[in-house]
Amino acid sequence: MSFKVSDIGEKELIKYIISNSKNITPDDTAVTPFNFSNLISTCDMLIQSKHFPENMSYFDMGFKAVTVNVSDLAAMGAKPLGFLLAIAFPKDLNLDSFKQLIDGVINACDYYEIPLIGGDTNEASEIIISGTALGLCDNPLMKNTYNLGDLIAVTGDIGLAALGFNLTDDNIYTNKVLKPRARIKEGLILKNYATSATDITDGLASELYEIKKDGFGFIIYEDKLNISDDFKKLSRDFNLDYLDLIFHVGEDFELLFTISKDDIDDLTIDFNVIGEVTDSDVVELVLDDGNVVGIKNKGYEHLC
Amino acid sequence: MSFKVSDIGEKELIKYIISNSKNITPDDTAVTPFNFSNLISTCDMLIQSKHFPENMSYFDMGFKAVTVNVSDLAAMGAKPLGFLLAIAFPKDLNLDSFKQLIDGVINACDYYEIPLIGGDTNEASEIIISGTALGLCDNPLMKNTYNLGDLIAVTGDIGLAALGFNLTDDNIYTNKVLKPRARIKEGLILKNYATSATDITDGLASELYEIKKDGFGFIIYEDKLNISDDFKKLSRDFNLDYLDLIFHVGEDFELLFTISKDDIDDLTIDFNVIGEVTDSDVVELVLDDGNVVGIKNKGYEHLC
Repeated sequence: MSFKVSDIGEKELIKYIISNSKNITPDDTAVTPFNFSNLISTCDMLIQSKHFPENMSYFDMGFKAVTVNVSDLAAMGAKPLGFLLAIAFPKDLNLDSFKQLIDGVINACDYYEIPLIGGDTNEASEIIISGTALGLCDNPLMKNTYNLGDLIAVTGDIGLAALGFNLTDDNIYTNKVLKPRARIKEGLILKNYATSATDITDGLASELYEIKKDGFGFIIYEDKLNISDDFKKLSRDFNLDYLDLIFHVGEDFELLFTISKDDIDDLTIDFNVIGEVTDSDVVELVLDDGNVVGIKNKGYEHLC
Repeated sequence: MSFKVSDIGEKELIKYIISNSKNITPDDTAVTPFNFSNLISTCDMLIQSKHFPENMSYFDMGFKAVTVNVSDLAAMGAKPLGFLLAIAFPKDLNLDSFKQLIDGVINACDYYEIPLIGGDTNEASEIIISGTALGLCDNPLMKNTYNLGDLIAVTGDIGLAALGFNLTDDNIYTNKVLKPRARIKEGLILKNYATSATDITDGLASELYEIKKDGFGFIIYEDKLNISDDFKKLSRDFNLDYLDLIFHVGEDFELLFTISKDDIDDLTIDFNVIGEVTDSDVVELVLDDGNVVGIKNKGYEHLC
């Protein structure tokens, strides 16, 4: 019997790659020690039909391709060093659309203060943008270096993009889908205070399980998730579970971090404490009504 | 009137990108000063229907994706530091084919002694491999730093792949198409002797024009190009011009370099002197019959 890659899914495919290469850091980025510092490197490929909503402008596509890569640098607390752009597009793409796409990339590089240093162009049946972000960091913020009793926090509201995918008007939800911004400045401050960090791309639940280590667990409080009445109402209008949107969709590009209770008052960025690191070995949610439920390990996964 | 990208072609599109970004080094790779050395970085995207011949194995596709990137490091004389792999493939790809592809990447990383340090996986309608190669070099070998009277040389025979694209049997020509190897060891030696270097991917003519600077020219000698009778015969059999194969196709992955006449005898690698740097401002070929002809600036270009 012949198996297809979709029979085992993206996570298992990645395990196959990692198990065959001893040099991969299982974190947001690669970390390569070099001359008393660390080179931080990461790559993310975006494919038009998979990653760009139909109503996204070419400028916003280009900007997002930089954002998704810089977001990984932010999660390590790295200072941006350079961006490489490998891009493919159809022969019959309008020249104006091409220019808008490139302008989006260049504006994003300016916004994040990461110089565009090189790249490659190609022809394909749809737009494909593969970015590589390079950074520097003396003490990278790893994913799972938290301690028992640390607080769990996020740099902004979670689930907005998840709801935005269902809407078309111009509002805070669709804005988060079309114009996501990486938390690079916050990451540079967090590296001096946080005990660990990652960025939220595949959903809060998926990231919590991603950072979970044996013997540790997390308790999250619904009443700390800053869920607005408007968010709940719109979710109901679309027959969607608002907690599902918050936990299991992603594309937030916020940072999820842990921090010692002793250091939380010194933090000079906007953030929202949503829970605590426990020794329960489970990931749980305390609902508004006081009931405690398990959070499922379910998030966005390619090739399923 | 609305222009398409194909109306202006890849070279003009790249000019648009470079003219809008002050940080791009117009060379084989980016060069970023980094903790008392230089970080060398480059990315190349390969797309199944454009870059992989139909008879190429999945293993060889994976290997080639590393080779094309490492070849750019070789052209700078850089020491490999790390490789990032962003890969997309169809959902219904056989699991065995996926594993062969990854094994090709990992074998290539071992062969070139470049650790696979990170990556990204995605779904697409065909196989897309976007690699990023990182390296280090104190004194990178740039493209156009040659002097009048320097010799022009190559690390191996040119045109073999160009002929191989027309053949199907297992021979030196198809082998060069299916199993190209980057000249990383040669690059590391050349950086101590050569005055400039680049790798030959888009054809010898295209690369000569790529490295040409105002006031300088090149004279190439047909009788130094090491063209075998077999090569000429096979070209005739397929109704192809053997000089066109040598100058205007590419995919050689050999290094084209310049070197002072004083240093040529100290060079410990295999190479072939093919010509000389002149002050003629033209790129010329001395044919076997003694006639001198201009070499056209024509090579492989996407999006035309």
